[in-house]
Amino acid sequence: MPYFDVASAAPLHPVARQALLASLDEGWADPARLYREGRRARLLLDAAREAAAEAVGCRPDELVFTPSGTHAVHSAVAGALAGRRRVGGHLVVSAVEHSSVLHAAESHAAAGGSVSTVAVSRTGAVSAADWARALRPDTALACLQSANHEVGTVQPVAEVAEVCAAAGVPLLVDAAQSLPWEKVPEGWSLAAASAHKWGGPPGVGLLAVRKGVRFSPQGPADERESGRVPGFPNLPAVVAAAASLRAVRAEAQEEARRLRVLVDRLRRRVARLVPDVEVVGDPDRRLPHLVTFSCLYVDGETLLHELDRAGFSVSSGSSCTSSTLTPSHVLRAMGVLSEGNVRVSLPTGTTAAEVNAFLEVLPGVVAGVRERLGVPTEPVAEPVAETVEVDAVGLRCPQPVIELARAIGGVRVGGVVTVLSDDEVARLDIPAWCSLRGHAYLGEAPVPGSRAAAYRVRRTV
Amino acid sequence: MPYFDVASAAPLHPVARQALLASLDEGWADPARLYREGRRARLLLDAAREAAAEAVGCRPDELVFTPSGTHAVHSAVAGALAGRRRVGGHLVVSAVEHSSVLHAAESHAAAGGSVSTVAVSRTGAVSAADWARALRPDTALACLQSANHEVGTVQPVAEVAEVCAAAGVPLLVDAAQSLPWEKVPEGWSLAAASAHKWGGPPGVGLLAVRKGVRFSPQGPADERESGRVPGFPNLPAVVAAAASLRAVRAEAQEEARRLRVLVDRLRRRVARLVPDVEVVGDPDRRLPHLVTFSCLYVDGETLLHELDRAGFSVSSGSSCTSSTLTPSHVLRAMGVLSEGNVRVSLPTGTTAAEVNAFLEVLPGVVAGVRERLGVPTEPVAEPVAETVEVDAVGLRCPQPVIELARAIGGVRVGGVVTVLSDDEVARLDIPAWCSLRGHAYLGEAPVPGSRAAAYRVRRTV
Repeated sequence: MPYFDVASAAPLHPVARQALLASLDEGWADPARLYREGRRARLLLDAAREAAAEAVGCRPDELVFTPSGTHAVHSAVAGALAGRRRVGGHLVVSAVEHSSVLHAAESHAAAGGSVSTVAVSRTGAVSAADWARALRPDTALACLQSANHEVGTVQPVAEVAEVCAAAGVPLLVDAAQSLPWEKVPEGWSLAAASAHKWGGPPGVGLLAVRKGVRFSPQGPADERESGRVPGFPNLPAVVAAAASLRAVRAEAQEEARRLRVLVDRLRRRVARLVPDVEVVGDPDRRLPHLVTFSCLYVDGETLLHELDRAGFSVSSGSSCTSSTLTPSHVLRAMGVLSEGNVRVSLPTGTTAAEVNAFLEVLPGVVAGVRERLGVPTEPVAEPVAETVEVDAVGLRCPQPVIELARAIGGVRVGGVVTVLSDDEVARLDIPAWCSLRGHAYLGEAPVPGSRAAAYRVRRTV
Repeated sequence: MPYFDVASAAPLHPVARQALLASLDEGWADPARLYREGRRARLLLDAAREAAAEAVGCRPDELVFTPSGTHAVHSAVAGALAGRRRVGGHLVVSAVEHSSVLHAAESHAAAGGSVSTVAVSRTGAVSAADWARALRPDTALACLQSANHEVGTVQPVAEVAEVCAAAGVPLLVDAAQSLPWEKVPEGWSLAAASAHKWGGPPGVGLLAVRKGVRFSPQGPADERESGRVPGFPNLPAVVAAAASLRAVRAEAQEEARRLRVLVDRLRRRVARLVPDVEVVGDPDRRLPHLVTFSCLYVDGETLLHELDRAGFSVSSGSSCTSSTLTPSHVLRAMGVLSEGNVRVSLPTGTTAAEVNAFLEVLPGVVAGVRERLGVPTEPVAEPVAETVEVDAVGLRCPQPVIELARAIGGVRVGGVVTVLSDDEVARLDIPAWCSLRGHAYLGEAPVPGSRAAAYRVRRTV
């Protein structure tokens, strides 16, 4: 039963399991105590810190262990902003950061700070030029991920670090997705990561702060972890996290090469086997193990459910998935289709046979969902009208786009379909549909006395 | 090799180990995901929450899991204060709370809030009358531990809860030390605890907030744990924590009875076997497994080191221990002797033979330390002087008290010894010494042009 959602959480690495068991016996005591159990715990903690620091690319005394990657990011943002309070209260983030960074930014804004968001290209990458324009004399901190967690696009961290350094602005790199593969890219001032992304246990994050970076930990403090992470240290998990990071890294190069071939295959074959699909993210500058695509006329929740029934665990940034009513902020920032979105992230050790099995199942699953939703496969009417208005008010993703696809067959080439929709996602998915199908998106206009908007599309093919 | 510091951290309970291993296999995935691995994780999380809530004495939807007991306390204090910001910014805490509560209070004060500290008796307990006097119309929150972590004294939570309820002030009960033994005492509004105190793994705390208590989580938030604890949940550890809490509780009554007998024996025998010792804490209203005593003329660090060499792991609130230069705030608040302080906290399963072995070793260890420090056993001089001044400036605990003991033999009954000391601890330990030895403490006076104080003692026996 293949699990293809390692970007959410990886199953425990065998080395982590072994280290966890050993340190549950040896490392349960308080490492701050002077008796033998405490001294043993302290030795384990020191060794784990050294191993983790080497994997990050920093000195052991620059690194602390936090209760999660999210905690590391929150502490990093709060501590760095407070440390440079005199410089100003301006924070720069990319539009596609992990939610933990964006939540920290919201929290900063709510407390009176200002936040600038750097836009991304259609592949999900920022540009160093855009980044340089966002920096201001009062910028206290900038945050950029090493690679995107939803589409796998690798960010130009080195270039961005250069413009930050030139402006004297510290750069926090969220390395959660890339740390299993390599050190944090050069140029960072602060770095954060999360152990359960590399087969470590949950409950462990890393926060590294370069010597010389102004950092003022926020909230109540104690003497643990250089005063940066209060509370009893989660030692057995920390030891297991460090051990598995080292183990994963030992095979990272070879495994990356192997998985890159499988992901290449997925990118090619999905585009060929599934009609009306958009494979997103940078095709080259990307994580080795992750691919994301969106399927027109499909609702994400049903798609995930059907794939789960077929034995495949994947995730989705679709709006029509589970609890969330808005599409992933990443897909929105990229301006790509969000409906029927699927993220496949392969654990180390994934076989070609498992990927092939997924490719065998996927087209039928997508076709089945589309059939149930009544997606038009043939033109439903003679193309006679000059203009058609589709009232999709009250319908939710992917229905407005399905109604649009149904109506487009009824207008002549050059004619215009207007879709009235109050679904927030239509704003993203109707233009994305146009670009996929080669029609011209003419823009949107408010509908007086209504929360809906009118989206206009000219038939061009 | 007996480990007698379970109040710091308990070794992993066998049930916790088993539950941890099982949930590492079953519960590593993201419980928010819809695929089978996620659903399995969600089931485990729900079951753990139900078990923990039952042990606390609350509804499952009132309880969240945090990364540590410290984290639970910090979140509880910040969230409850923010939730009642309109009422005012006044916080009431006892003088003997755990450092996590006091750090949260310091943080509140640093942000402009006001804090009142309720004093304790010589046994370490607050009184409901004192508590009522501390409450004000602008009191937003009050914090009281269920039992003290250093001396074991049980607090009158029910009475304090009553005066808080009468004043409409929510009460946060830090139940870290008592939760392994029983539910949180009735009357609490918020409660916090820590799993590694009951043989659960580190990395898990509990925060319970009664329905109807105003609570506004602070800092960046996400959708995890009712929006109260951001970050990926530490699921295997949470499952193990809940399982071990249930297991520990099943045997709590019987084990409490058994350990109470051993601690009674320790209290009696230590007082008899070791000269110049003060057994502290309430002799009756106390935790079943914990006893603390202080030995005159002994430095805590050496004592701990010697006990460790003899095979016993205990902790100390002495100032002369490890990194800290001030005595435990608990001993100070109680006004009891801090030098040569030893806390013995027995893990479940401790045998009478282990306790007896400790009692056999202790007197010799204490005598050995005293001998090396040159403690006077006989009067060193004819008692001829009316007044003697001892210059102990620059000497550290326990030396000023040793110098005092040496000098007292040189003055006549009714005469006065003046000790000049710049050791902060002398302020606590010289009066404590007087009360132990039956001499009259006359008070202290500043020494002009010096950081030292002059402590005056009248010989009465």
